[in-house]
Amino acid sequence: MFEESKSPAQSVSSLGEFKLIDELTQSFKNQLKSSVKGIGDDAAILEPTHEQILVSTDLLIEGVHFNLGYMPLKHLGYKAVTVNLSDICAMNAIPTQITLAIAVSNRFNLDALKEFYAGVETACKTYKVDLVGGDTTSSTKGMTISVTAIGSVEKEKACRRDGAKEGDLIVVSGDLGAAYLGFQILERERKIFEVNEHHQPDLDLYAYLVERQLKPEARKDIVELLKQLDVNPSSMIDISDGLASEIKHLCKESALGCKIYEDKIPIDPTVVRTAEEFKLDPSLCALSGGEDYELLFSISQEDYTKIKANPNLSVIGHFTGPNTGCYLVGRDESMAEITAQGWDSFRD
Amino acid sequence: MFEESKSPAQSVSSLGEFKLIDELTQSFKNQLKSSVKGIGDDAAILEPTHEQILVSTDLLIEGVHFNLGYMPLKHLGYKAVTVNLSDICAMNAIPTQITLAIAVSNRFNLDALKEFYAGVETACKTYKVDLVGGDTTSSTKGMTISVTAIGSVEKEKACRRDGAKEGDLIVVSGDLGAAYLGFQILERERKIFEVNEHHQPDLDLYAYLVERQLKPEARKDIVELLKQLDVNPSSMIDISDGLASEIKHLCKESALGCKIYEDKIPIDPTVVRTAEEFKLDPSLCALSGGEDYELLFSISQEDYTKIKANPNLSVIGHFTGPNTGCYLVGRDESMAEITAQGWDSFRD
Repeated sequence: MFEESKSPAQSVSSLGEFKLIDELTQSFKNQLKSSVKGIGDDAAILEPTHEQILVSTDLLIEGVHFNLGYMPLKHLGYKAVTVNLSDICAMNAIPTQITLAIAVSNRFNLDALKEFYAGVETACKTYKVDLVGGDTTSSTKGMTISVTAIGSVEKEKACRRDGAKEGDLIVVSGDLGAAYLGFQILERERKIFEVNEHHQPDLDLYAYLVERQLKPEARKDIVELLKQLDVNPSSMIDISDGLASEIKHLCKESALGCKIYEDKIPIDPTVVRTAEEFKLDPSLCALSGGEDYELLFSISQEDYTKIKANPNLSVIGHFTGPNTGCYLVGRDESMAEITAQGWDSFRD
Repeated sequence: MFEESKSPAQSVSSLGEFKLIDELTQSFKNQLKSSVKGIGDDAAILEPTHEQILVSTDLLIEGVHFNLGYMPLKHLGYKAVTVNLSDICAMNAIPTQITLAIAVSNRFNLDALKEFYAGVETACKTYKVDLVGGDTTSSTKGMTISVTAIGSVEKEKACRRDGAKEGDLIVVSGDLGAAYLGFQILERERKIFEVNEHHQPDLDLYAYLVERQLKPEARKDIVELLKQLDVNPSSMIDISDGLASEIKHLCKESALGCKIYEDKIPIDPTVVRTAEEFKLDPSLCALSGGEDYELLFSISQEDYTKIKANPNLSVIGHFTGPNTGCYLVGRDESMAEITAQGWDSFRD
């Protein structure tokens, strides 16, 4: 999906900030009527098509959230956008615009930044969102990225974390655990490369896992699917820190407990095979791995017939009454309390 | 305005990300009906009161945009908010919400972050804006701050940079050059302190300059004043990089030239006196200094009578036809082309 750039390397400081922004964003075209005025003024002017808007901001720091040793800049640009769009999708809403602010040290030349913006542009086109503003500045160390995503939604249609009811079914999109194992594969290859720089990695066997790590998608298609199916989820979140951490957020905010059935958690065969290779429990990869950016949501039992035939959606459990705790029901019908071991940038 | 914190120092990593966010934001209360759901979900839900919204994002990097050697954390929190609100005011609009993302190294403990957030909270209260979301993460070096400001405005009322007409008067709010000299004062004190750590700075003489640097305000009051006066500016920008740089932006975007009269540029007597002390030209401080966050805008000549008596507003020149160039008319009636020497993080 990504082509290589051919122009000669140019330093960023020789251009200056304003020409740099022009250079990086000139190929971006606004796709939406709601983007009245994009890049080039003090603020973007938007005219939302629905009554309510959604806003989410993330900060990504080199060496904390990404490693350029195995994350190509185009993929990083793509991922920086999609993980933020995922937060809008997690409100059961359609993302419409982003702003992007980056800070880079003098280690990054114009070509490197163009690569990054090419990934941003691909994500904008794929998801039909417009880049409407931002900031480009220098840093004393490494690369820092801040993306703010904006969406719009009809009044009272946004899905919050606090709306689940006792008895509601817990549903997850896609499959879980792959992004975490993709990270393990890339880390292993990086370590081998450090010892032997002639090493040629053969990632074909792990292509799905690596793609899930390097090029995660926001499940805008699931938001559209739920609308088509006439399903209004009662609560929703996206899985950035692992299923365990996210289900606990829904339970806490909705003041409920839950039961998740281990054998219902959707796990790709590649995840099962690779987890074994790493001597890891595939269910644990799904529960604590994170970065899958699938949607986790709840629906009323009456809506079950609307979703049961859909291969993109798995019912993995249900909400239980207040103060009943969060439990994982094992394949042997054992009950284990779910503890959140999601990723924490301050600890890991 | 800022009280000192009394609680014992606590490390950030011992809390974890979610408790940290709770700890830092629990005292923030939403003030606006348009903030339907703030912190604590995947995205904030807003219900704008007007048809159009405005969005602006900035990234502030320690060692590039601020120096904690003389910038107290509370002031930094305040300034990080106000400089972003200024971008919304610069569209002739009222800011309503912000999101805030920060990344900090392990050099910052909980008390330090609380100080920063106290400044953010003061700014939110002063400007009646709500903090509705964000991100708190670790960094490998120093502190990084990203603020996204949101405002709302009636359709076709937002003031862009490209709307000035030939003959329109150029107006600036407040006075210019003080923030730049405040920075010079603080830099001088820092250098003296490096040599003699018992040095007690006497900043009384320079209080106005230092306050303009450390605690800049967004001119929301000017936006409100213009509405009261029934003046609709034809173009507008805020002065973050210096008058010269900003007037050139207006000229470029509106495809016009301009004449600015040196003797009309509003300069505080403290600026004149201190510029002389530093052997600097006060007009040059106003033209190239930056960080004043005053509003620069244009009005039709018919609106002149509405503003002429106002001590907060100075007419400093007018727009001339296309391709006529941007000129400064000196006190001796000499004409000099205006060159933008605004601050550029990649160069300075």
